[in-house]
Amino acid sequence: MKTCLERIPQDVVALCDYERLAPEFLPPDIWAYLAGGAADERGLKVNQEAYRQWSIQPQVLVEMHGASSTLQLRGGQLPHPFFIAPMAAHRLFHAEGELATALGAAAMGAPLVMSCRASTPIEAMPRHLGVPLWFQLYVRKDREFMLGLVRRLEDAGCDGLVVTVDAPVSGIRNREQRAGFRFPEEIEAPHLVGEPAWPVVESVLDPRYLAELPTWEDLIWLKNQTRLPVWLKGVLSVADAQRAVEASFDGLVVSNHGGRTLDVLPAPLKVLPEISREVAGRIPVLVDGGIRRGTDAFIALALGADAVMVGRPMLYALAVAGAVGVAHALRILCHELEVAMLLAGCPTLPSIRGRVRPVMKG
Amino acid sequence: MKTCLERIPQDVVALCDYERLAPEFLPPDIWAYLAGGAADERGLKVNQEAYRQWSIQPQVLVEMHGASSTLQLRGGQLPHPFFIAPMAAHRLFHAEGELATALGAAAMGAPLVMSCRASTPIEAMPRHLGVPLWFQLYVRKDREFMLGLVRRLEDAGCDGLVVTVDAPVSGIRNREQRAGFRFPEEIEAPHLVGEPAWPVVESVLDPRYLAELPTWEDLIWLKNQTRLPVWLKGVLSVADAQRAVEASFDGLVVSNHGGRTLDVLPAPLKVLPEISREVAGRIPVLVDGGIRRGTDAFIALALGADAVMVGRPMLYALAVAGAVGVAHALRILCHELEVAMLLAGCPTLPSIRGRVRPVMKG
Amino acid sequence: MKTCLERIPQDVVALCDYERLAPEFLPPDIWAYLAGGAADERGLKVNQEAYRQWSIQPQVLVEMHGASSTLQLRGGQLPHPFFIAPMAAHRLFHAEGELATALGAAAMGAPLVMSCRASTPIEAMPRHLGVPLWFQLYVRKDREFMLGLVRRLEDAGCDGLVVTVDAPVSGIRNREQRAGFRFPEEIEAPHLVGEPAWPVVESVLDPRYLAELPTWEDLIWLKNQTRLPVWLKGVLSVADAQRAVEASFDGLVVSNHGGRTLDVLPAPLKVLPEISREVAGRIPVLVDGGIRRGTDAFIALALGADAVMVGRPMLYALAVAGAVGVAHALRILCHELEVAMLLAGCPTLPSIRGRVRPVMKG
Amino acid sequence: MKTCLERIPQDVVALCDYERLAPEFLPPDIWAYLAGGAADERGLKVNQEAYRQWSIQPQVLVEMHGASSTLQLRGGQLPHPFFIAPMAAHRLFHAEGELATALGAAAMGAPLVMSCRASTPIEAMPRHLGVPLWFQLYVRKDREFMLGLVRRLEDAGCDGLVVTVDAPVSGIRNREQRAGFRFPEEIEAPHLVGEPAWPVVESVLDPRYLAELPTWEDLIWLKNQTRLPVWLKGVLSVADAQRAVEASFDGLVVSNHGGRTLDVLPAPLKVLPEISREVAGRIPVLVDGGIRRGTDAFIALALGADAVMVGRPMLYALAVAGAVGVAHALRILCHELEVAMLLAGCPTLPSIRGRVRPVMKG
Repeated sequence: MKTCLERIPQDVVALCDYERLAPEFLPPDIWAYLAGGAADERGLKVNQEAYRQWSIQPQVLVEMHGASSTLQLRGGQLPHPFFIAPMAAHRLFHAEGELATALGAAAMGAPLVMSCRASTPIEAMPRHLGVPLWFQLYVRKDREFMLGLVRRLEDAGCDGLVVTVDAPVSGIRNREQRAGFRFPEEIEAPHLVGEPAWPVVESVLDPRYLAELPTWEDLIWLKNQTRLPVWLKGVLSVADAQRAVEASFDGLVVSNHGGRTLDVLPAPLKVLPEISREVAGRIPVLVDGGIRRGTDAFIALALGADAVMVGRPMLYALAVAGAVGVAHALRILCHELEVAMLLAGCPTLPSIRGRVRPVMKG
Repeated sequence: MKTCLERIPQDVVALCDYERLAPEFLPPDIWAYLAGGAADERGLKVNQEAYRQWSIQPQVLVEMHGASSTLQLRGGQLPHPFFIAPMAAHRLFHAEGELATALGAAAMGAPLVMSCRASTPIEAMPRHLGVPLWFQLYVRKDREFMLGLVRRLEDAGCDGLVVTVDAPVSGIRNREQRAGFRFPEEIEAPHLVGEPAWPVVESVLDPRYLAELPTWEDLIWLKNQTRLPVWLKGVLSVADAQRAVEASFDGLVVSNHGGRTLDVLPAPLKVLPEISREVAGRIPVLVDGGIRRGTDAFIALALGADAVMVGRPMLYALAVAGAVGVAHALRILCHELEVAMLLAGCPTLPSIRGRVRPVMKG
Repeated sequence: MKTCLERIPQDVVALCDYERLAPEFLPPDIWAYLAGGAADERGLKVNQEAYRQWSIQPQVLVEMHGASSTLQLRGGQLPHPFFIAPMAAHRLFHAEGELATALGAAAMGAPLVMSCRASTPIEAMPRHLGVPLWFQLYVRKDREFMLGLVRRLEDAGCDGLVVTVDAPVSGIRNREQRAGFRFPEEIEAPHLVGEPAWPVVESVLDPRYLAELPTWEDLIWLKNQTRLPVWLKGVLSVADAQRAVEASFDGLVVSNHGGRTLDVLPAPLKVLPEISREVAGRIPVLVDGGIRRGTDAFIALALGADAVMVGRPMLYALAVAGAVGVAHALRILCHELEVAMLLAGCPTLPSIRGRVRPVMKG
Repeated sequence: MKTCLERIPQDVVALCDYERLAPEFLPPDIWAYLAGGAADERGLKVNQEAYRQWSIQPQVLVEMHGASSTLQLRGGQLPHPFFIAPMAAHRLFHAEGELATALGAAAMGAPLVMSCRASTPIEAMPRHLGVPLWFQLYVRKDREFMLGLVRRLEDAGCDGLVVTVDAPVSGIRNREQRAGFRFPEEIEAPHLVGEPAWPVVESVLDPRYLAELPTWEDLIWLKNQTRLPVWLKGVLSVADAQRAVEASFDGLVVSNHGGRTLDVLPAPLKVLPEISREVAGRIPVLVDGGIRRGTDAFIALALGADAVMVGRPMLYALAVAGAVGVAHALRILCHELEVAMLLAGCPTLPSIRGRVRPVMKG
């Protein structure tokens, strides 16, 4: 097993190069955990293939004076529309864990969304980097625990909450099971301390298990406990998007959990247009799952996203080359997006909207 | 050739794992017989691919109080919507044959449909397991023989009849032919004793052969001879479904005989929606062919099935690990279905109806 | 290189088995000539794939009394709807050439269409076999030559003419070119003796070359010289089909010359429905190209063909096992068709019309 | 590495044969530069696949008297509709560079479009060959430089200008990057002498970089400086085509730069019909990208092109067999086109319009 590189090899020029190299830097079970998905992993494939259904519609000789990839969001602007998706326990992939990821992300001005299963306490995260730090969590029925966690996040200066709503139960991840992956004991989960345990049940439809599941009411309660913006992650239906807007949530992430819950959920890109139409600009809509190129981000924005989250490739880069890898991978995405904007004749992110057409077929 | 396992290996976590292992536990000709299909075996492929055309449409944060996978059927309820499809001569695959299958099925509460070509007499089957036992048969013109068989099944406490109507002649199964498979003489067929022989003919359109084929009239006659519920298996057209309902049959199995007759029949899932619309809930509609995951069952129910039959994978599991394998394979399916219901936000089987959308493509 | 078998191996159970074996029985250049097609050979692939777009729509429990695969044609009936397509020089593939093919065909009652490039004179063909013998030809501008040929065919008792209209120039057959195939000098072409030579030109648009090409006028002239039925082979457009009917030709073969002219012509099956609609039963419509199974013939008939021609597979069988191979291959096709009729519930060829539906997709 | 052949091998019968052989005649990095495209190279694939979506609709027995592949263009006629697309630095691929290409092209009467990055000065190109010589360039903001270049081209007897408008920035060509390709210092670029340098920037959206990009105004200025015809290359949108016509440009090349800028642009063939409809014959419309067969040219003309440009395959042939290779490759294309015209029943280029239909699929 190779150790994290100090210099990026000459032939690493795209995110797929990090994906190609990463398994050499990780134990097989951790690779299975990171790269795998639910069941037959159709979700992994579909998420990426959804982007292959679209081509970019360019215009030539467009006046590009003042062009920029700046993202305008309520409460500030970001240099580009890339977020790092919440993913558990970065220490599995690199000794410095979330610290390294955050450093790499900050170098490119990309917000990091910490996972509630992060292996670094939020209090230890550097806050002088000038980049937003968000935190992802699950809502539990135990309101005291929830309140404690929220206050802790607020105190640590967290910029916003991303509540995952699409995983009331873990997916059945066969690759992980076959590889015998288990969270190593030495990887800490400092934000889960004190979390109520889940009941041990035979069936996930056991009433004791079901009683632990949050509903809209619990989410709304949470939202009312904090002034932080609260985004919902994992929405794939128009009805849920509508309800989120009506309940005054602050943003949506259209996601199928990276293909890690059910492998037969729709590709997020597939449902993005109808959700974007429903939301109609009232709150930001992000999308994740399958983004491997700056042109993928262009396509997502063309189909209604305001920004995108990138997941696994960031950890591939982290495993291969640490903070430098993360920064480099983000740099590649940004460069690819800027080149696409220039070649398509789109001087701003909003001007990208609509600039795709279905590929091939008739 | 390996002998049946006593413990299930750690890396057997899905039905495809049993399919991967099974050929190591069977002679090549028996494997060809079991796994093969008609002609170029397009049917095998299409049956499974049909499920790949659909994704599950989830909703989040749904109230799941009281959720359950219970199947309500006229005359009782079952813990889940999985039946074991009728398949010949389980002793080909395991020394205990249907006894082992039934034991494994009962452990999970799944009804077994015995084949008329079963290698164990129905009288020898355990009836204290609390699970329905159905019997599959073909209708022959010899009414005395038919009546004898029906009375025997009734006497043995059989819970219902599944009449196969889609195989007036065996399919042309090239894989089987190339492997030189023949039913071994030592495998008995205790329910076919006394059955009139088929005429030996050059052409299947020989009048002597055609004279032996049953028609609707024969089926209706059969139905009138018994109080057992009679289901028809092998319906793929709306007209036939309509006729079955009008003739008061008790259930339908939409099936192309597992791709073993013609390999260019429609996938059952493909015709299920139109047949389900026609039947409109008047009798139960089951579907078989290609189900390998609990999510496949979810999709079938979403498109109009009341329950599903699972065939070959049960025998793969039987060959690999006997009764324990069968129970384990069913356990996997049930767990996958329950997880899907939870992740999709469907608390009951009927609530699954309609909760799919076409995958990808525009 | 193997020599022609005297017994058919046990594992030859479908036409694809002959295709698999045939290259072992032929020199590479002759195999390239036989199996190859134009350019990138997309035509070969598309011709077969067109059949994969359709599935058979069955009905169950149909009254099959009197079922039969008999083909009713003006001027007689045939036991089934299979013709052997015209193909050059059978002696390339078997020492007995067309004699062996005819013998095998006659054993199954299938009409043979001799090629004008046959390696056996029509006068030498056995005429006591009770099966029609047709002859394929090209129309040349030299009317004296044409008349001589027609009289000769009439005198030899030929049952009908098939005029190929889709090959004013040979296709560019790269596989053949790369293999260096040339017609061996010892293979005679007894029907081309006296045929006017084609001018040697740099470009096929050379006026001297163009002047040799037949038009509708020439075809109509030919038709008026004989009482034999005259079919046109190579029609792929509705307009041409309409014109053929108006000009009182006796039959059509929808064909793209087996993918041997341009590899980007439509699959015959693709244009069959519109041509069949146009012809509306006024003359027989046959189709060739890509038929490898009896179920393919079923699909062709369902989409409007009255009968089908089978080409290359007949010569694969000829190369492997001579006359017995040809008969066996035809026997397989007939059996597959009969089984399909039985399983689909179609007692006659005309009852097959319309009994397909598009496979998969939505 | 092999040296350029003096005789063309017997098995080189199609352009794909040159593509197969070429890598043996080039250093790996130069092969990567030539054969590669942007990013994941989907553009390369899509460009060719677009042609696979169409089949040719033939008619038989058409009167072909006077048939010819002559292309009528404003200001003259050409023997066929093939142009050699502008490509940089032919000396990378053959010692004689553009001289060899021009010689081969002239032998077949095909116009060569020299690249502004040609490795041979236009003044050194032979002008006694009787074939048009065009020149491709990029418009820069420095009008003095532009004027100097245009005068130079006029003085050298250039027949027309092709302005590339689709590459304000180079594509991100990962294959090239991984192979470590850089333009060798010894390969001169005699038309770029004196060209203003591009600013060295971190981001392509840097204002200093953007300030260098041409707009429609600059293109129109250029057009007004010369009496040479000016074509625009790289148009993929109807709006741009409309603007080009309104601004009196003399021709359009529908192109995605051979898949070398963004790999997710539409295939040129895909947008050709709508652009052709918009232009409505007012100026010539050419298309490039993916043409490998004479039948591809037929399809392009059927869908609205007046002529086609062929790129990489010409350099593959140049690398393998120099001028003779180029001539041979063009000869193959011409022959394939003529054979297609004959087999489709199209006596002239304009008669090809509309003679295609979508392949397969319903």
